Amino acid sequence: MKIDRQPPIGVFDSGVGGLTVLRALRLALPAEDFIYLGDTARLPYGTKSPETVVRYSLQCAAALLARRIRCLVVACNTASAAALSALRVRHPALPVIGVIEPGAAAAVAASQSQHIAVIGTEGTIGGGAYQSAIHGLNQRARVTAAACSLFVAMAEEGWTDGPIAQAVARRYLEPMFKNDDAPDTLVLGCTHFPVLTASIRTVLPGHIRIVDSAATTAAAVVRQLHNVTKTAGRGHVTWLATDGAARFARVGSTFLGEPLHAERIEIIDL
Amino acid sequence: MKIDRQPPIGVFDSGVGGLTVLRALRLALPAEDFIYLGDTARLPYGTKSPETVVRYSLQCAAALLARRIRCLVVACNTASAAALSALRVRHPALPVIGVIEPGAAAAVAASQSQHIAVIGTEGTIGGGAYQSAIHGLNQRARVTAAACSLFVAMAEEGWTDGPIAQAVARRYLEPMFKNDDAPDTLVLGCTHFPVLTASIRTVLPGHIRIVDSAATTAAAVVRQLHNVTKTAGRGHVTWLATDGAARFARVGSTFLGEPLHAERIEIIDL
Repeated sequence: MKIDRQPPIGVFDSGVGGLTVLRALRLALPAEDFIYLGDTARLPYGTKSPETVVRYSLQCAAALLARRIRCLVVACNTASAAALSALRVRHPALPVIGVIEPGAAAAVAASQSQHIAVIGTEGTIGGGAYQSAIHGLNQRARVTAAACSLFVAMAEEGWTDGPIAQAVARRYLEPMFKNDDAPDTLVLGCTHFPVLTASIRTVLPGHIRIVDSAATTAAAVVRQLHNVTKTAGRGHVTWLATDGAARFARVGSTFLGEPLHAERIEIIDL
Repeated sequence: MKIDRQPPIGVFDSGVGGLTVLRALRLALPAEDFIYLGDTARLPYGTKSPETVVRYSLQCAAALLARRIRCLVVACNTASAAALSALRVRHPALPVIGVIEPGAAAAVAASQSQHIAVIGTEGTIGGGAYQSAIHGLNQRARVTAAACSLFVAMAEEGWTDGPIAQAVARRYLEPMFKNDDAPDTLVLGCTHFPVLTASIRTVLPGHIRIVDSAATTAAAVVRQLHNVTKTAGRGHVTWLATDGAARFARVGSTFLGEPLHAERIEIIDL
């Protein structure tokens, strides 16, 4: 069904990591318009408390709603883990899609042994959101989870391959995969991590499946829109950042795979 | 001169890094009371724009002034670089001491060749504050500067020694010290970096002097107080954090070298 001039889809993240999700969304929905908001004045969310992440997420959603969006994608694992229900309660008429439920579903579908490894930020792993989402789909699944905080800084620094990236990956991941009954699937539970996939792959046994929630989230958004989506032309993306539009554009292009230009907006934290 | 019941000295940082400065302050002024504020809801400052860092710094100063302080120590290189003059303009009667001027003075005093290397966050290095402060003391000094963003995450993760810390140090520092006319002094221009000193030392030529601005900042505070300071008893420290008091206490004890208990406060960002 072709419907033109639909309002855009809003996407937010603490910074640039969510651009891996936006990239997948644009591949799935090339004719749609998007507004992407990176809350760079307050990034990262991953080391902050759930209460603070909820407050920031509600403020990001309000800023996007002020620009008329018809659907909200929370392209940040930490915010999806902490704030999804608060966002749905505050905005009952707005479809809100996070990255955790689609990632958990993809992992359960991919794993033969139903022993699944999840890596993410301190906030995502500590809050147990992936563990809950996976158990909601398969009560008997086993989940082994670990926070890999340094991956975020490495992705932002652009140190995505080479010996240091591999050594960091080895230090985080080898303990998870050394036993005979180790997981057969690894969920990249942070939107920064997909740019490190090659380095992560070098330290994993060859049969491990890697699940990145970007593509599965995009598929969930397509389902949410019930195919009521634009099909003709190339959609437009509006880029917003709460701080440092130049840095956002520079670091962001690593994640997006193409150049971008951002506008700075203010968010008032009350 | 012994004066009891003086108001405390206020100290703020984006998070835990400034605890290396507080530790030096307590060594220099053991009987003084301190209030330390870690703006953990918005850390790190090092990748944010100068305008945002000025706004956050003014808000931190206001929160400390509301608790009656008699002197303000900006225990963060990024905030010292961006916000010192704004803080002095806003609070003309309040002594405000940053970490950059004392660090620059210590480096100029330590260097024989007057070729000085400075490492810090993107914000500190990009803003050129150390370069200006060193040139203000010696116009003919040479400064070689580099941003070492990953050091912050490594310090927070507790990966302060071992092969990964050394490999990261080598990648950042070897290019600065490989030539015959390399610097003879290295300024640790971020309060997170002193906990990495041992790893940094392993990749430097043996004759390089390392300057950490914590001790020199403490000496500057002692001078500022004109010896009007308490001399008897053991002072008290009040710990405040804008987010995650438990995480602040856990990560902070690495930097402080002793346990601490923090209270969470709200800062309104207007």
